[in-house]
Amino acid sequence: MKKLINDRNRIVDDMIDGYVVGHADRVRRAANPRIVTRSEPKSTGKVGLVIGNGSGHEPIAMGWVGHGLLDANAVGDIFAAPPPELILDGIKAADVGAGVILLISQHAGDVMNGEAAIELAQGEGITTEALLMYDDISSAPKGQESERRGAPGTTFIYKIVGAAAEEGRNLKALMQLGARVRDNTRTLAAAVAPGISPLTGEPMFELPADEIYVGMGVHGEPGMGRRQVEPASDLVDAMMTPIIEDLPFREDDEVIPLVNGSGGTTLMELLIVYREVAARLADHGIRTFKPLIGELVTTQEMAGFSISLLRADEEMKRLWLAPCSAPYFHM
Amino acid sequence: MKKLINDRNRIVDDMIDGYVVGHADRVRRAANPRIVTRSEPKSTGKVGLVIGNGSGHEPIAMGWVGHGLLDANAVGDIFAAPPPELILDGIKAADVGAGVILLISQHAGDVMNGEAAIELAQGEGITTEALLMYDDISSAPKGQESERRGAPGTTFIYKIVGAAAEEGRNLKALMQLGARVRDNTRTLAAAVAPGISPLTGEPMFELPADEIYVGMGVHGEPGMGRRQVEPASDLVDAMMTPIIEDLPFREDDEVIPLVNGSGGTTLMELLIVYREVAARLADHGIRTFKPLIGELVTTQEMAGFSISLLRADEEMKRLWLAPCSAPYFHM
Repeated sequence: MKKLINDRNRIVDDMIDGYVVGHADRVRRAANPRIVTRSEPKSTGKVGLVIGNGSGHEPIAMGWVGHGLLDANAVGDIFAAPPPELILDGIKAADVGAGVILLISQHAGDVMNGEAAIELAQGEGITTEALLMYDDISSAPKGQESERRGAPGTTFIYKIVGAAAEEGRNLKALMQLGARVRDNTRTLAAAVAPGISPLTGEPMFELPADEIYVGMGVHGEPGMGRRQVEPASDLVDAMMTPIIEDLPFREDDEVIPLVNGSGGTTLMELLIVYREVAARLADHGIRTFKPLIGELVTTQEMAGFSISLLRADEEMKRLWLAPCSAPYFHM
Repeated sequence: MKKLINDRNRIVDDMIDGYVVGHADRVRRAANPRIVTRSEPKSTGKVGLVIGNGSGHEPIAMGWVGHGLLDANAVGDIFAAPPPELILDGIKAADVGAGVILLISQHAGDVMNGEAAIELAQGEGITTEALLMYDDISSAPKGQESERRGAPGTTFIYKIVGAAAEEGRNLKALMQLGARVRDNTRTLAAAVAPGISPLTGEPMFELPADEIYVGMGVHGEPGMGRRQVEPASDLVDAMMTPIIEDLPFREDDEVIPLVNGSGGTTLMELLIVYREVAARLADHGIRTFKPLIGELVTTQEMAGFSISLLRADEEMKRLWLAPCSAPYFHM
């Protein structure tokens, strides 16, 4: 295995070391060394935003701790949901008495441990609610949206709810806003080549040299099916139709598009994919607002990308553009 | 080849399409469709900053066109220096009558075509000077610094000279500042695995599964030698010693460190590398100022990284932190 690490048992802790030393102007460790929180003093009356997640998908979520985004991240082991006690410490790090929202990207372990952490927090008198995030249209059919997996379209929730929390909105209003963003987001992913697990040194799944897998989850979960390698325009076409039909997005809607790279796909390719996404949206008479194109949610060196669309209203658009400052969230 | 493209003859043009559509708030095409320039109106009296470079290394340089950074980029074919006539159009796009600096990362083709472009520009009455950039300590011995290759440490020049140009400094002062930044920068790279050429679909060089190559250039140029895969701390140790000795960097110096990812190396690994860089600097009593850790200069999916150090004075530090807004330059 040619990963640049010191010791596979220390990967996560060494990574956090480098992160907080390199970005000390914005992030620091809490008392629990697996909790990353903001360097800036806590704002009185602000609702805290926390996520616990398995590491190995950087920059999400550790990289998004900062002004206008997250207050704290509980950094789990690689690809493993953090235990409830660790998430509880994240909730405590974000709590200033106005309540805390625990963002949960819907995967079984994250939901289970997140809900257990909320019980612990409530037991300590911290008002905490879970905002379940799901957007991957390949993981459950239309009509069963709430059974879908969390995918890179959850990015919209972090940014928009993060901006609203910074403005001082209360817990109930933020939960409603977050649900509205989620319910107007749809995502579909394409896997081109596997990443290498830092734990085993082995590829995380197998894919023939001439095939692309549509709808695969970030850990290699099954999706919609395999396609032969084809021009980007054909692949994007085949993905945009089910995305658009799922919400459905309609003529004159205004959407924020996100093209996320899975880790091993070049910016060159992501920009070509975006060219095709923009063209398909134009074909449907759907307007675009301030897209985001880059690597936000990755799975090691996995090649591939996802397309997410958010049907945005005026409030979401304003909050999407609000300034923020986290080491690895950039527009 | 599993690159996400439409047609290998259209890669660069399709990429620019996606870039200017996706980031229209900051960049646009000039009359020549291979010239990317700022969307904002040109500032009267500002010295123009231009670079022409082969594409395939994104985000550099196209992604760095924007306020406080570059005025224009002449986007060459993949891994190929742009022809003089194209660079000339870039110079024209950046010219408002106060002179233009053509930044040239020192590689034979870029120097030859850049100097020819400057002759053409001078012939049309545009005052233009070449700022040669070189920083790779593996490519020529100490004492022959001006024969070295340009490497990711050139990033310091773009950002610092870009900020000074925005403040209205004149051509001569900017050239002096750029040379001062260059002469205080040292870089060394490590290649872990090759990228895939989008033109041939083949790996760009060969490297045994258990070896890492120190000092390889961004196109696979030879360097200092091969090392067995080893803990990141040992590899960084072995790289930091020659970097520090080359300038040399001394106790109480203040440096800006840059850890650049070559494309296929995860942020997790870059942060672990930075942990080791910071520790070695601390061992030497060298102070650090606002590091940069991320993918800035890539070669497709190539795995690896480089370490650059700039010995920074107060002026450089101030300009390093000056606000900028380009789609893919972020601190």
